[in-house]
Amino acid sequence: MVSHQEIRLSGSGGQGLILGGIILAEAGIIDGKNAVQSQSYGPEARGGASKAEVIISSESIDYPKVEKADLLLALTQVAYDKYITTLKDEGILVIDSSIKHNNDIPCKVVKVPIISTASEKIGKAMVANIVAIGAIQQLTSIVTKEALETAVLNRVPRGTEELNKKALMEGYNLAIESTSSKAVNKIV
Amino acid sequence: MVSHQEIRLSGSGGQGLILGGIILAEAGIIDGKNAVQSQSYGPEARGGASKAEVIISSESIDYPKVEKADLLLALTQVAYDKYITTLKDEGILVIDSSIKHNNDIPCKVVKVPIISTASEKIGKAMVANIVAIGAIQQLTSIVTKEALETAVLNRVPRGTEELNKKALMEGYNLAIESTSSKAVNKIV
Repeated sequence: MVSHQEIRLSGSGGQGLILGGIILAEAGIIDGKNAVQSQSYGPEARGGASKAEVIISSESIDYPKVEKADLLLALTQVAYDKYITTLKDEGILVIDSSIKHNNDIPCKVVKVPIISTASEKIGKAMVANIVAIGAIQQLTSIVTKEALETAVLNRVPRGTEELNKKALMEGYNLAIESTSSKAVNKIV
Repeated sequence: MVSHQEIRLSGSGGQGLILGGIILAEAGIIDGKNAVQSQSYGPEARGGASKAEVIISSESIDYPKVEKADLLLALTQVAYDKYITTLKDEGILVIDSSIKHNNDIPCKVVKVPIISTASEKIGKAMVANIVAIGAIQQLTSIVTKEALETAVLNRVPRGTEELNKKALMEGYNLAIESTSSKAVNKIV
């Protein structure tokens, strides 16, 4: 079976989205797939929104730039406003609870408290990226949990392994809770 | 004046080449240019060679994947052997002194002791990536020194700033010494 998923991670600089993308791509490789991770910087990078892109595919990847994404993560309102039009109609939107989204968008909306879970429940705002990729794994199965955990542990600073494993678990849980509640709105 | 440079950083996993690419791209942005940084993983990623790519341009960047590079950095023999054919004939090859290169290649060859400078002169093998991007700056002026230093300090772990500044300076010096000696061989 051919699998091919394109993901755009957006938020503000300093939220660790590039590292999040690198970890997802490396997990894809551990799973035996092909992966490309990229970030573009330009005038938009000066406007307060940051993004990283990942493609994971069972086939070789010819064009490494994500056009319309299968999944868009937005951790800030600015990033949501800027990138919401770059998500496929049938795609999945994962947004932090702090974000106001348009009720008319056709995609599946998963609204979860990523930032407050990182800063309050885990106690480190900087693990929001890991919470987010845990939620993305649970929602898409784009990579396996085993591969994702290995990739996280390969990439995070020494001494923060347990913290980051906890962040990953919280991310899984947020996604599970969201799909068993009204937090998922399949609007069309 | 239009400027457009494409750089491929290659070596082995763990040499910090992705971070090196991110720092170069961010320095390009600080200089007011556009930049794309990417890494592809696939069957090749399992073969022992790792690579990261950077495009920095005064124009917008349509196709974010580096084809034939203007500059190839190779920190290992395996990476050199794999990627040497992906450098433009008129390009610049920057290789660690440990690497045996073919004397028939048409590009400019800059052979410098990047790895031993990092591990012996600075005392931390892990700063080889920063030494390398310092040398690349000196050889290409792809970014300004001011922007590069800012980008390095933004991205390296707290507490390692002085070490990394020193690594950058050593990289500049290696490139200056190479161009004032026989280490640069313009073969064709």
